[in-house]
Amino acid sequence: MLQVKTPVDAIKIIKESFKGSISATEILPLHACMGRVLACDIHADQNVPNFNRSSVDGYAVRAADTFGCSDSMSAIVKLRGVVNMGEGAMFSIAPGECAYVPTGGAIPDGADAVVMLEYTESYGGGEIGILKPAAPGNNMVYIGDDVFPGKTVLKRGRVVRPEDIGALAALGICEVSVVRKPVVGILSTGDELVEVSETPSAGQVRDVNSSMLYAAVQSFGGEPVCLGIVRDGYVRLRNALNAALESCDMVLISGGSSVGQMDSTCAVIDERGKLLLHGIAMKPGKPTIVGNVDGKPVFGLPGHPLAAHFVAKVFVKPLIEQMLCCSTRNCSVKAVLTEAVSANHGREQYSGAILFDKDGVTYVEPVHSKSGLISTLAGCDGYFVVPRDCEGYAKGTEIEVII
Amino acid sequence: MLQVKTPVDAIKIIKESFKGSISATEILPLHACMGRVLACDIHADQNVPNFNRSSVDGYAVRAADTFGCSDSMSAIVKLRGVVNMGEGAMFSIAPGECAYVPTGGAIPDGADAVVMLEYTESYGGGEIGILKPAAPGNNMVYIGDDVFPGKTVLKRGRVVRPEDIGALAALGICEVSVVRKPVVGILSTGDELVEVSETPSAGQVRDVNSSMLYAAVQSFGGEPVCLGIVRDGYVRLRNALNAALESCDMVLISGGSSVGQMDSTCAVIDERGKLLLHGIAMKPGKPTIVGNVDGKPVFGLPGHPLAAHFVAKVFVKPLIEQMLCCSTRNCSVKAVLTEAVSANHGREQYSGAILFDKDGVTYVEPVHSKSGLISTLAGCDGYFVVPRDCEGYAKGTEIEVII
Repeated sequence: MLQVKTPVDAIKIIKESFKGSISATEILPLHACMGRVLACDIHADQNVPNFNRSSVDGYAVRAADTFGCSDSMSAIVKLRGVVNMGEGAMFSIAPGECAYVPTGGAIPDGADAVVMLEYTESYGGGEIGILKPAAPGNNMVYIGDDVFPGKTVLKRGRVVRPEDIGALAALGICEVSVVRKPVVGILSTGDELVEVSETPSAGQVRDVNSSMLYAAVQSFGGEPVCLGIVRDGYVRLRNALNAALESCDMVLISGGSSVGQMDSTCAVIDERGKLLLHGIAMKPGKPTIVGNVDGKPVFGLPGHPLAAHFVAKVFVKPLIEQMLCCSTRNCSVKAVLTEAVSANHGREQYSGAILFDKDGVTYVEPVHSKSGLISTLAGCDGYFVVPRDCEGYAKGTEIEVII
Repeated sequence: MLQVKTPVDAIKIIKESFKGSISATEILPLHACMGRVLACDIHADQNVPNFNRSSVDGYAVRAADTFGCSDSMSAIVKLRGVVNMGEGAMFSIAPGECAYVPTGGAIPDGADAVVMLEYTESYGGGEIGILKPAAPGNNMVYIGDDVFPGKTVLKRGRVVRPEDIGALAALGICEVSVVRKPVVGILSTGDELVEVSETPSAGQVRDVNSSMLYAAVQSFGGEPVCLGIVRDGYVRLRNALNAALESCDMVLISGGSSVGQMDSTCAVIDERGKLLLHGIAMKPGKPTIVGNVDGKPVFGLPGHPLAAHFVAKVFVKPLIEQMLCCSTRNCSVKAVLTEAVSANHGREQYSGAILFDKDGVTYVEPVHSKSGLISTLAGCDGYFVVPRDCEGYAKGTEIEVII
């Protein structure tokens, strides 16, 4: 009989058990990569820019020609020509010469600095007065300043953001190798469940968890598959799990918090695989089961939507990220409790939270719930955790709220 | 000639100018609503649960029958029957009787509390001993405890999360009215631009901004449309903008930071609409143009990808959210600078940042960039801002990094 584990230990066990799985990859067009995980490092194989560019509108000069000049005593250089956008310079700059270059334009050979238009005067007849000395390199972006061949631009495991897509575009990369999303099968068990589209009779409730976990898995970066409602009973559950494991990388079985139902889930996992966890010291979420079947994780989540929600956030999410070879940082906000929170169950307590700002201070209002009440989570801004050895927090305490 | 505005003033002007636009809505199936914005309040029209439910495995009793009992002196009640999952109770409980109810099962009439299995003993012959007194309501979830008719479950403007989908599923809501995503047309201007799939010749660069802004607009909640590269010139730009405005709610024109190009963008906006902003006191991002054409926002973003990126984040994002009738809270992290940062331009300075944890402290490494270098943003974890009146921060200063 497995002992109830703390959430910290449970996460360790889960991550260790599924460490070795090789993640599949796929090639996607650049525009489809937002939020996907890079499957390998990206190295530049070219210079960007591949020509010396001006970063201002101005005159490309030889810096030496401008030394000592000032507002009152300009250095005079002769306009050799104008560089057009999109073309290389058709000429080079000899001593005493300059070229007009627009922002982003190519700098002619011979020039080693650009003077901003604002620091010049045109005297007519091709004569340009420089009013401020230039140092070599001023207002120039050199070949390869952005990226050069061999430079690592992005690393494997990076979750692609718009800026990253810009970097890949700059390199001319139109197709990217990303980690394939783990396919997560979602089963709801229970004789009391009916589809969301149906009206429950006495004793029946709608299958909330399928819809909620489907969306949660999407948000974690997985590819959810709804496998429907399975009626209570060892044989039905075993058959459903076997079928799911044929095409899924992970299976979530929600429901089954009653003694009989949990026994079925444990028995089904035990028969084909290995039970890793049976009970986690968290509230809500204690009746959580985790197993390894054919190297794939199978979760037995509580039937109560609130509990299933927290267990998925705390345990399924990090595992999906591990399978994606990436990790994300939880966002949190410090906020002041508007009322006392009591705990003292010997379990970590998870609670929904509503945030609001008043007079420059961020406040957090804990959301009260009886076990199983999804409406108490709807409309929340985040959640907070009371550690197991803590009896609660007083009103006015500043706590960390995870968003 | 419009004066350069501070970012704070610029956001005010932008939001005020486009305040009155009515947002279109659309109906989506529940599973497609993740991340979408609710177009109207959701009120419950039914009770959830619609029967009194047990939240534990145990015996439904009349609390009065259990008063005064204990481990050593149990209260004995007679087992009237068992409630099955998914069925209403087929009987009611008279004084001195109890019923076995699984977690989530329906509680028979007459019972007003449930005693956990752990606090009972079976003596055989249908006699159950209660070892712990029950108070009325113990371990019960009453009809309507979760939601009751008229209760507001979610508000208009809510960005839908998995928990919210659970709440909607509990109500049997299979289709949801959400705010339609604003269609954002993306134009890149410049004779120096070539498509991402091409190899640039001397003086040419790839069109990075189209790809980057496409992904950025997606991340802001908009629906981006790539309208391609437009060569320099007033007439071409005017025609492209006119065409874009036929089908888009907003247009982003990137490129055009040289004097000539900016003049074209301003002139095109002025001809049909009204110029609102010409220059923002931020670095990078100063050469930013914003206009109102036929009630639609038109942005002239800098051509430099780094600048375009920041301007989009700081100005386009809040405007898209305003059009979606929602607002999001920026996530930030306090971190310690690994090196000094100098500023002092009279402009707000935006800088990419890399975060790392060491010995329990979160550090931030500023990313250095010359104007236009996208690779300096690739791989960043977030950014920070140095206010305009600040000359910089010393190494070791704790700053706020926006993720």
